[in-house]
Amino acid sequence: MAAADWDVIIIGAGTAGLAVLREVSKQTDKVLVINAGAYGTTCARVGCMPSKVLIESARAVHDCNKLAGFGIAGGQQVKADIPAVLRHVRELRDHFVEGTVQATEGLGDRSIAGQARLVGPQAVEVNGQVHRAERIIIATGSRPVMPAAWAALGDRVLTTDTVFEQADLPARMAVIGLGPIGLEMAQALAYLGVAVHAFDKSSSLGGISDPKVEKALRDALEKDFSIHTGVDVELHAQDDGVRVAAGDQSWEVDRVLVAVGRKPNLDGLNLECLDVALDDHGMPPFSVATMQIGDLPVFIAGDVNHHAPILHEAADEGYIAAHNALADQPTPFPRRTPMGIVFIEPGVAFVGQRFAELERDALIGEASFTNQGRAVAAQRNAGLMRIYARGEDAVLIGAEMCVPAGEHMAHLLGLAISEGLTVRQVLRMPFYHPVLEEGLRSALRQIMKQIPCDDTDLARCGEFRIQALD
Amino acid sequence: MAAADWDVIIIGAGTAGLAVLREVSKQTDKVLVINAGAYGTTCARVGCMPSKVLIESARAVHDCNKLAGFGIAGGQQVKADIPAVLRHVRELRDHFVEGTVQATEGLGDRSIAGQARLVGPQAVEVNGQVHRAERIIIATGSRPVMPAAWAALGDRVLTTDTVFEQADLPARMAVIGLGPIGLEMAQALAYLGVAVHAFDKSSSLGGISDPKVEKALRDALEKDFSIHTGVDVELHAQDDGVRVAAGDQSWEVDRVLVAVGRKPNLDGLNLECLDVALDDHGMPPFSVATMQIGDLPVFIAGDVNHHAPILHEAADEGYIAAHNALADQPTPFPRRTPMGIVFIEPGVAFVGQRFAELERDALIGEASFTNQGRAVAAQRNAGLMRIYARGEDAVLIGAEMCVPAGEHMAHLLGLAISEGLTVRQVLRMPFYHPVLEEGLRSALRQIMKQIPCDDTDLARCGEFRIQALD
Repeated sequence: MAAADWDVIIIGAGTAGLAVLREVSKQTDKVLVINAGAYGTTCARVGCMPSKVLIESARAVHDCNKLAGFGIAGGQQVKADIPAVLRHVRELRDHFVEGTVQATEGLGDRSIAGQARLVGPQAVEVNGQVHRAERIIIATGSRPVMPAAWAALGDRVLTTDTVFEQADLPARMAVIGLGPIGLEMAQALAYLGVAVHAFDKSSSLGGISDPKVEKALRDALEKDFSIHTGVDVELHAQDDGVRVAAGDQSWEVDRVLVAVGRKPNLDGLNLECLDVALDDHGMPPFSVATMQIGDLPVFIAGDVNHHAPILHEAADEGYIAAHNALADQPTPFPRRTPMGIVFIEPGVAFVGQRFAELERDALIGEASFTNQGRAVAAQRNAGLMRIYARGEDAVLIGAEMCVPAGEHMAHLLGLAISEGLTVRQVLRMPFYHPVLEEGLRSALRQIMKQIPCDDTDLARCGEFRIQALD
Repeated sequence: MAAADWDVIIIGAGTAGLAVLREVSKQTDKVLVINAGAYGTTCARVGCMPSKVLIESARAVHDCNKLAGFGIAGGQQVKADIPAVLRHVRELRDHFVEGTVQATEGLGDRSIAGQARLVGPQAVEVNGQVHRAERIIIATGSRPVMPAAWAALGDRVLTTDTVFEQADLPARMAVIGLGPIGLEMAQALAYLGVAVHAFDKSSSLGGISDPKVEKALRDALEKDFSIHTGVDVELHAQDDGVRVAAGDQSWEVDRVLVAVGRKPNLDGLNLECLDVALDDHGMPPFSVATMQIGDLPVFIAGDVNHHAPILHEAADEGYIAAHNALADQPTPFPRRTPMGIVFIEPGVAFVGQRFAELERDALIGEASFTNQGRAVAAQRNAGLMRIYARGEDAVLIGAEMCVPAGEHMAHLLGLAISEGLTVRQVLRMPFYHPVLEEGLRSALRQIMKQIPCDDTDLARCGEFRIQALD
């Protein structure tokens, strides 16, 4: 075999690919980046960042509904200028994309725009030329799923690839799919004044597995938009819009946002040449600890492998793949405690084990935020937190929640679970007053009450059962 | 000596006193609560709760200044109706107070309203009658300091005892004292549209000891109100208002809020009868681990002992005092990791060791939030976080900060410090994207870079140096 042209070829210049580039570049310049389509990461172009800007804008206008309750006049005059909101989203989006694009701009001929096609475990063809490398890392990301029948409706159906590009939003929209992306978009659109009908074929919301949390979220969200779960929908063109039909009911809307999942970009990579068994979706076998495909000099990192398609995991996978691509023997890396956040209000979050995965003897503590002191003061009093601990030793193992500041609660619990701390250890930390974390403490105290324990320390301080003090 | 009438007498029905009552009642009914003045805790009546309601209202109106930046019209029409805001504060305040008052309402003749006066280590006189007890717990709280010369200005000078009672606020106010309470009130008043001049005789703000954090906070706050530190002020009545003079400068305001500290309510307790050496402020010697005064059957808990005059510490002290009052031998309790929060924007917080207390070889990591991705999306991009770790082993020991969501960051770090975790351990937790906690991660990574370390794990993942990804 001819000597390799490159130490590493990276296919895909998204988050995982850039993480590989960052790590590999510490050891070698012989790295080639091949990218098809637009540069800039999914996160910055069409994912986390534009959605968060839209959400912050939507929340700002929606929060004005609370003004009268605070004794503030004029809230009813506040109105989202939706074309201006969307321009703002694109402006900030462009700013965020710029940074990610710059990451590959200085590479010169070590960066090639084109569709990569493997011709072997150490060779990639792009733009008619074959490049050989010691190691290949596949990091081609994912794209929104769009059923062909719906795609035929043309620009009446949108995805997160296109929704932020709209000049304006119509009065009525359907959101199909109520996973994290669908939920975030449905609430943001509703907050901006769009009448939203949201649908999901499953009976749950946002991937929540705990029925009590799901119920609390549903109760909170039904104020914002209408929710139809457990339904299979059909879309039909009607006038300038779309008729969404489910069973014998139907709804007329102007546009439909399709958020039924994302699909790995495996097409055209010719993974068949690797001589490993691909699954029904064309996915090769790989290790989530090493990112290696079989025992080949080929690694697969980020959303393309569909293991944990969120930014921080994609970045980790790029790090692991880069480390192992340059090593003689791959090192298995323990992965981080799982965490998911849905940026809505009340904030949905999962950490560690899910309710659906619990052993029967797991301990569960819960806290409602409908009457939590600080949440009441902020008019954010809604939602429920459920925390799970191991039956035998009260080590924290997971949580599901929809609560104000859920994203922050998730990080606190994420640290506790990551370090294997017990409920008692967490209860020894300081909880200031009045803070939303006191609600989390209430849930922990509920678990403590289920544990026989003779010792006395500050973790045993009970609740006052006085709202202003707990 | 006559047999005791009571197992425990609690003097003061505030947070510490109620915590004692909660714990003692688990073991005995022979407990007497004596309270002078208004019932309801400092927190609920004049502290945490009304201030937080005022702050939330003030923040809601101030946040409308950001609306145009989000593409939302009408923000300039929004205006605080200050009498309505103050009514809302009092309504919620009354609701919070109600709960704390109920805690003593069912006690019947085990609760006495009156000024308690010790007549020995096991005897208290109230309303002309002497009650004997096995143990006495002093939990009389504190009150705002008001220099006599300023008090002479009558209702032109306010404290947190009176400010929430106002029917309206004037156009111009001075805030004297820029500790946590003064800072919170100064910003809230300014957000509500009052022109605020704020003064402190020290040269620092909010008790921050880290000069870089103090500088960042000063930069952020100077947009909201004018800050005069390192000045001694004099107050003079002028027309219907007050002239605040400092050196050869002076400012005319309508009212002055005095927030120069709080004073323990030790007066009239006759602690001299305990035959222990009182300090210059009349404070007896006591242990912060047992709350016991000397080796007497007398304990002192909560704000009155001036050790850590904040709610969660007062509650802890009540718990400790109750436990030890009922025990044959007092148990020393390790106290919680210190934490302070100032509820302003950007949020000021301290956890663990202060900058001023650091050893010379301490490791410091910092992160600015002026360009942090999520903070930019939310238009909350301001402030600085500084995290401290022990030089020898990179165990987290403290932090000072003024950052968005500072109160949540403080709790995450509070858990880490409380459990003695290393920077590396915290860097192994999941950090979602895009969240403000990624700023905290940047500060931790700065510390990691200062540590020689050969191993590789996910804690070693570096930053992208790409705003949308870090």
